This record gives sequence, C-alpha cells and structure tokens, in this order.
Amino acid sequence: TPVAAATREDSGAPRTVVTGYGELNYNRPTKDASQAQADVRRAVIGIHHRFDDKTKLVSEFEWEHAVTSADDRGEVAVEQLYVERELNNGMRAKAGLFLIPSGLINTNHEPTAFYGVERNFVETAIIPSTWRELGVGLSGDLPNGLSWDAGVTTGFDLSKWDAASTEGRESPLGSIHQEGQLAKSRDLSVHGALNWRGVPGLLLGGSVFTGKAGHRTAGFQAQDARVTLWDLHARYTPGRWDLQGVYARGQISNVDALNLTLVGNPTLVPTSFYGWYAQAAYQLLKSGDYSLSPFLRYEKFNTARSTTTLPAGLGGDPAADEKVVTLGANLRVGEGVVVKADYQKFREDTTRDRLNLGVGFSF
Amino acid sequence: TPVAAATREDSGAPRTVVTGYGELNYNRPTKDASQAQADVRRAVIGIHHRFDDKTKLVSEFEWEHAVTSADDRGEVAVEQLYVERELNNGMRAKAGLFLIPSGLINTNHEPTAFYGVERNFVETAIIPSTWRELGVGLSGDLPNGLSWDAGVTTGFDLSKWDAASTEGRESPLGSIHQEGQLAKSRDLSVHGALNWRGVPGLLLGGSVFTGKAGHRTAGFQAQDARVTLWDLHARYTPGRWDLQGVYARGQISNVDALNLTLVGNPTLVPTSFYGWYAQAAYQLLKSGDYSLSPFLRYEKFNTARSTTTLPAGLGGDPAADEKVVTLGANLRVGEGVVVKADYQKFREDTTRDRLNLGVGFSF
Amino acid sequence: TPVAAATREDSGAPRTVVTGYGELNYNRPTKDASQAQADVRRAVIGIHHRFDDKTKLVSEFEWEHAVTSADDRGEVAVEQLYVERELNNGMRAKAGLFLIPSGLINTNHEPTAFYGVERNFVETAIIPSTWRELGVGLSGDLPNGLSWDAGVTTGFDLSKWDAASTEGRESPLGSIHQEGQLAKSRDLSVHGALNWRGVPGLLLGGSVFTGKAGHRTAGFQAQDARVTLWDLHARYTPGRWDLQGVYARGQISNVDALNLTLVGNPTLVPTSFYGWYAQAAYQLLKSGDYSLSPFLRYEKFNTARSTTTLPAGLGGDPAADEKVVTLGANLRVGEGVVVKADYQKFREDTTRDRLNLGVGFSF
Repeated sequence: TPVAAATREDSGAPRTVVTGYGELNYNRPTKDASQAQADVRRAVIGIHHRFDDKTKLVSEFEWEHAVTSADDRGEVAVEQLYVERELNNGMRAKAGLFLIPSGLINTNHEPTAFYGVERNFVETAIIPSTWRELGVGLSGDLPNGLSWDAGVTTGFDLSKWDAASTEGRESPLGSIHQEGQLAKSRDLSVHGALNWRGVPGLLLGGSVFTGKAGHRTAGFQAQDARVTLWDLHARYTPGRWDLQGVYARGQISNVDALNLTLVGNPTLVPTSFYGWYAQAAYQLLKSGDYSLSPFLRYEKFNTARSTTTLPAGLGGDPAADEKVVTLGANLRVGEGVVVKADYQKFREDTTRDRLNLGVGFSF
Repeated sequence: TPVAAATREDSGAPRTVVTGYGELNYNRPTKDASQAQADVRRAVIGIHHRFDDKTKLVSEFEWEHAVTSADDRGEVAVEQLYVERELNNGMRAKAGLFLIPSGLINTNHEPTAFYGVERNFVETAIIPSTWRELGVGLSGDLPNGLSWDAGVTTGFDLSKWDAASTEGRESPLGSIHQEGQLAKSRDLSVHGALNWRGVPGLLLGGSVFTGKAGHRTAGFQAQDARVTLWDLHARYTPGRWDLQGVYARGQISNVDALNLTLVGNPTLVPTSFYGWYAQAAYQLLKSGDYSLSPFLRYEKFNTARSTTTLPAGLGGDPAADEKVVTLGANLRVGEGVVVKADYQKFREDTTRDRLNLGVGFSF
Repeated sequence: TPVAAATREDSGAPRTVVTGYGELNYNRPTKDASQAQADVRRAVIGIHHRFDDKTKLVSEFEWEHAVTSADDRGEVAVEQLYVERELNNGMRAKAGLFLIPSGLINTNHEPTAFYGVERNFVETAIIPSTWRELGVGLSGDLPNGLSWDAGVTTGFDLSKWDAASTEGRESPLGSIHQEGQLAKSRDLSVHGALNWRGVPGLLLGGSVFTGKAGHRTAGFQAQDARVTLWDLHARYTPGRWDLQGVYARGQISNVDALNLTLVGNPTLVPTSFYGWYAQAAYQLLKSGDYSLSPFLRYEKFNTARSTTTLPAGLGGDPAADEKVVTLGANLRVGEGVVVKADYQKFREDTTRDRLNLGVGFSF
C-alpha cells in the first residue's frame, strides 16, 4: 500500500495539498530594553492544487502580527495566487499574483530557507520582499543549466509616496508597491531573470525589473517616473559551507519636478538606492535530527544613495551607507523546524543594535 | 487501490475536503486609461467536512482585494458557515450563515460558472451577490423535478443607509446587508425559492425574500420599512448553447418619512429597483482541454427606479435605466481554470465603457 | 485497505490535518428586543502538521464577527501557532504562541466542549479566554495521574489601560492582553499548572500566572505593576452527570500612583478581581445520534472587587458582585454538532437578562 499511495500521488489526478510556514520572533535592542518585542511575525497557509498533469494553482494566505482588525496592527494578505501551466514546448506559463524572481530570498522566503532571525536588509529595504505583482509570466530551462523567467506585470505606484513619513526611507519600493490590491495599471512593468546551476552546489543569477510608475494619476507631478531594480546573486554550498551574496540596485528616474514640490519634507524620492551582502554559514554540529549552523553576514545598503540635486540648504542630501554585521546560528530540528539566535551591530544608527531570537517552521 | 480510495470516499466516515476558487481581474476604461486597475478580486478557501452520512459543514473564507488591515482596502469574510443535515423525510435542514437562493449566480458564483470577467449587474446591483444571511432553512426535492427552499433569516438594516454616499445608488441592498456581522435581528426575514429541472438542460425558477428592516433602532425614522426582493430565472443548455436570463425586482416600503429627513442628500432610499438580462453563449471551439465560448449579454437595470415623491425641486427624481451590452469569450483550460476577456458598453454613463481581462479558477 | 490507511496514519510520516470549529449565536435581551443580534461569533481553521514522530505544529486561524476590514467590526487572528516536541525524558517542550493552561475552557474552548450558547463569565471576564501568549513551555505527566505545565511567556501591557472606556470593567485582563501582536516584552511572565486525573471521571487542577506589566514604557506611571492570576478548577462526570466548577482570582499590584492620575475617569485599574461558578449538566435523553443535556449554572464575579483607596468623593469605589444564573440545554447532533438554547438572569444589571440560541460545530 505505500506503493499505492505513491501511485496515487504521482498520477495526474486532481489533488490538493495544504502547506504552511511561520515565524515567531523576539527582538531586544541592546541599548533600550523597553523596546523589546515578541511578535507572531507571520503565519502562512499555502494551498496548492493540481488540476491535471499540466496545470496547477499556487496560493499563499498570510497573517502578519497575529491580529487584524480596524483597531489592530496586523495584516492579512493573499501573498501568491497564480495558475501555472506547462506548455508543449517545455516552457511554463503563469497568470495571477506571483513573486518577482529577484535576489535569493524573495522566491524562497520560508524561515527554514535563510540564516538569521530576520530577513537580511538588502532583500527587504532594497528588494521589497515578499514582492509580488499581478500579471503573466513565462519560464523555461535550457539544457546547459540555465533557467530563465520573463513577465509583464503591474508595477509601482509612485503617487503613493509619502514624503512626510519615513517609510520611504526604510524601503523605497516597499512604500509604493501595490501587492495586487486594486493596483493602478495604466503603466505595466516587465521583468526578466537568468539563473545558472551548471555546477553542483553553485547558483549564479541576476534579474531586472522596470516600468513606469505614474499611471497618469490626475495632478501627479511625475508622470514619466520609471522604477528600475536589478540584482546579481550567487550561492555556493561546498560540503558543510553555505556561501551567499546579493548585490541589488534600484533607481527612480524623472522625479526632479516631483521632488521640488516636496521640499521641506523629510523624505524626498530617492533617485538611486542599493545594497549588497556577503554571508558564510557552516554546519558545525549534527546530532540525531539536530543540526547547528553558525553564520556571519556583512551588509552595506543605502535606501537614499542619491536624490534630486537641490540648492544648498533645501535638503535632498543623500543618506549615509548603513553597514550591518550579523553573527548568529540556526539550529535545525528535523526537517521543518528551525530555532534561531543572532546579534546585529549597526555602524550608522547604533541605537538599532539588537539581540534576536526566533522559531520558525515550514512544511 | 483506486477502488479502495473510492470506497473510503463514498463511505460515511468523517472526512474533510479543502476547496478553493479565485478571480484576478484587469479593468481598463476605454475613455480614461488612468483608471485601469488590476486586482486580486477574490480568493476563497472552502472547507467542507462530513461529520457522518447525514450531517455536513459547508464553509467558505474569502479574501477580497489581496490585502486587509486598518490601512488597506481589502476585506476578509466568512462567506458561508452552515451545518446541513438530511432529515428522515428526505428534506434537508440547515442552520448558520448560508447563501440566499436568489437568481442564478448567488448560489453558484465561482468564476468558472459564469460568463464574463465581472459578474453581471443585475445579480450584483439588484440581487446583492454574494448575498448570505444567518438563520435556518429547509429544502427538498419533489419527484416531478421541482426543488424548493424556505427559510427564516436575518435581513437588512435600513438604519445603515448612507444618503450622503453613492453606495446605495450602486447597490441598494448591498449597502444595507449585514452579512452575519453582529447583525440586528429584532426583525427577521423569510424567503422561499422554487426551481424546476423537469426537462434535461432546462432550469426554470423563482424566489422571494421579504422582511422588515427597522429593528426598532432608537431614533430611526422608518421602523416599518420592509425590504422585498423577488426574481425569476431561466437557463437552457441545448447542445453547444448556453442561454440564460434573470429578472429581479426589489422594493423598500414605508420610507417616506425617512426620505423627508434626507432631502438635500444625493441618495434617497429608493422605493423600487429592478433589472433583467438575457445572455447567449456558444461553445465555438474545443481542442484538447481548451474550449472557447463567446457570449453576448444585454442588461437593463435601475437601482433607483422610484423613490418618495417630493415637491418639485427637492430631488427624489428616479434614475434612468442603465443598459449594458457585454461581448466577450470564456476560454476554459481543463476542468478548473478559465481565462476571460470582454468589452462592456454602457448606454447612460458612457464613461464606464471598458475592456476586461481575467483569470479564474475553481476546485 | 482500511488497515493500510490506519498504518499510514499511525506511522511517523509527515502529515497535515485540517480541523475547524465555529459558533453562530443569537442573543435577545428580554427587556429590549431592539438589541437582538445574530452573529458569526467565530469560525476557526486549524492546521496541524506532524513533522516526525516527535515534532508537531499546532495552529489555529480565527475569524470573529464574519467580516473584517478597515470599515468593519470583525477581527481575524492567529489564535495558536506553536511547535511542540517530545523530549527523550518524556517531557514535551513547546515554543510559539500557545494557550495558557488556566481554568477549564481556555485550552478546551470549542463550542461542543462547553454548556450554554456563550462561554461563562468567569472564564471570559476574569480569565480572558481565549488567552494565548508568546513564549516557551514545558509539560509532563507523572505516573500518579498528575500532569504539569510550566512556561515563560509574554505578559500583559498595562500601559494600554483605557480608563475612559468600560472595556477594562468588562474584562480587566482582556483589555490589556497582547495576543502575540508586536507584544512588549521587556517584562516576561511565568506560569505553572497542575492537573490530577487519578480517579476516572474526575479532574482537579489549578494554575498561576504572574508577571510585571510596565515594560519601562516611557512616561508610564506603573513600572512595577504586576499582574497575577490564579485559579482552581474541578470537573466530575459520574454516569450521565457533568459537574464543573472554577474559582479564579486576579490582582494588579503597584498601581496606586497610576490610578491617582486617572481620577475622574470611569474605569480605574482594579487591584483585585475574581469569580467562581458551579455548573451541573445531565444527559436527559439519547435517541439515535441526538443527545439532550439540560444544565444549570450559577456564577458570581466581580471585575473590580477593589481598587486604589481614594479620598471620599474621588471615585475608586469597588463594583458590586454580579450573579448570573444560566438555565438551558445542549442538543448534541452526532459527534461534532451542537444546538444550544439558554436563558440568563443577572442579579445586578438586570437589563442584561437575555435569551440565547446557538449552533456550533467542531471537527
């Protein structure tokens, strides 16, 4: 009967699979314990349905911060909802709300898949993980280990920029993403990604996403603004080592006229932002189904590397590069559970130095 | 072992089934592309549990517009949650939050079940799909092809009427429904429906729903207001054709005193509203698991056909009938996926003319 | 093949189970029918995943009041989300968001598990069911029928106290719980529970939870405030009888300075609150899969038994004990469905007298 079960699962018969992942995190700033917080950072129910041997649905439903209501601070969201179909030529077509293939974490964001309690800054402040758009995409694999993605999707809505808040300083694209929520789509965006897995244990890749972000919004000052984000990423896993690096860079063009109307506000629209990190992890111990992997990560990023050049005294000065060192360890428990601990040291804003503890799971 | 699986599924043993459906839509007004929008219109997780061979639970959990929080525009809702039990006399009794059997779409609202990217106007503006109420119901089948439904449920709350907004003009009942959310239930409503399927491929039916909507709300001016909605519907599917029509008409009585207090506001309570449509679809092509069905629909509806007669110049004029022609096609892909495209032309408010694209699924 | 299925389920292989429960309630105050309400009180999806024979995930996702959005009154929440692992010494360790083992209902809160349409007052107003905290816990069973729980978790945030509202009068701890939502955790809490099941049909137990609730919140007047709650509970089920009782008592210490700043507001922080109930149910009828159990419950509780002693005329008077008699019946239908009806009579606030009807399910 195990054979029978296997037969049923491998056949093209319709079937539905429920998956899930979640993260529960504790952050304690070392210089101000009154800011210590524990949070159900996210819990996700995934429902995957195979309609037939060529067609499937991928969906993810997310709860952030435990409680959502008109008076609470949580959020619930459809994080992915797309139909994918294998075409006769070996390519795959998809339509719906799907993850943009940028960097290493965005399409592989379960807590068991990355080191450290929190996702790294480059792939949250520069690449706005979990970043999804509504549209259509194609992907395929070439015989030489290359795989590719291309798509046309919704893009950003720059008219949402809030110069009075610091949200745009934390994550420029995270503050103007649309997430499939009644998304303005006068202007569509395009993206492409290439990844090469030609050598065992090695992944080399890159991506680019670009599109206009004005949507002819009435009265908006930056109709021709264009958002472009590209990245290069690498991962190498020889033996017990796990080495990773990502470089990402974004720019928002044609925003000078808009920024002149925002003078006096704390957060002008940046014209460029970027970041990179390098990370090394090593599986130090393995005992039963426990496995301990310390890691070290160095990050450098700047969410406002440049903005519109204004006359002296009118603001618009670029921000300083932030550099963060993270030292910690992931303790894997069996196949789907991870306990994490790390310490993060910030070079610029040292009030952010903190100790993090977390537990995560994925199935 | 397929036999074994079948045996298990057909037995009366408890079991839980996860279902789902969803729609991702793109709307582009032809006269103002800046209003183009892409949206995760809705995603639904259904959980059906059979307690024993006579008793089952039906539940549906819905996400609209992708993201819900205190600062977002999405909504999540329990759309259905009821227990149904087969009685010994062949009737079925149910209790909980269930769909009112009105029109064709309300109880059969998955995107694979209707033509066109958006649900028709008659069954959204007049019949407020997806329309559910909390209460108890009975249903049964007669040997001559007749089936019937009857129930006592919560009804509408007219004290929610917002004369300053245009919501009540878009869908009078949609603006005062309660959806099982702390629903006022001093006044209960009753409903009944009859459907005849005596000839293969043919469905003829009708329904009526009526109840008071004042609930003795303190200070409210229309304690005796009564909401009544009835419909007639037909569907005929000879060969490759799929022909449908619905006529629905509602009235809200005893609202003159209330309307006099609302004079000067844009949206008085209508005393009657109605609509009908006729639709023809034809399965033009079938190739492999693709099947293409163009369709044409003509609709006429009026959400404020009449209201309280006021002295000249004080407003209260009825609205004009809107007429909409929709021409498009559904492309079925396999059993559970549909890609849709259509164009809609409005006779009165021509700024609403639009192109629609959508992808939907159901399993 | 039933054997095969059993084998598969009993093995340590990974597997995912979907569960659920829900309550749909109707409340009709006997002295003011205009306040009658019907509500989808709660619907819960549970997802339980077994990673291996020692490790599992328990999760519950809850919808309250049917509809949640920025403009609606519903709420969705992650109610439980924890990973539990059996240790080699027979103990179980868990980490995440879990229920505090206090009283009888908090950890056993499905509508099929308690008598009456609504949960009793002692275990909602004094013990803030469904009460969960983020942290780590240990539990174990001793050979003599004793089982124990101990844990370190997040606690309450007294800086949330809203003296201008009556929320704190309805449930002091319910108004300052954090529920894993960006929870302040400068101060952690500890808890312990003991339960004895040494005689068939008998359960005797108790619990205590204590922790500081100031978190060094800037400008807050009660940094040393401590919240402590303890309870004793018993259940005895001889034959057709089901007898239950709970006594719970809480205190909030070191709040005098804070209360002096709140003088003039309706709701000072109570320094003590308590309640107890005794309940008897009897399975009167059993026919087929129907079973009818009338019950009677007497409750006495006070959410503000004492507060800071203020000079005469400045408020701060303790509230009177409320006494509630509930008489009703649960009708079980099969294994997982219950229909309930009861009448509640209040001694102090007689405007709350009401008739309740409900349907619930659990699987």
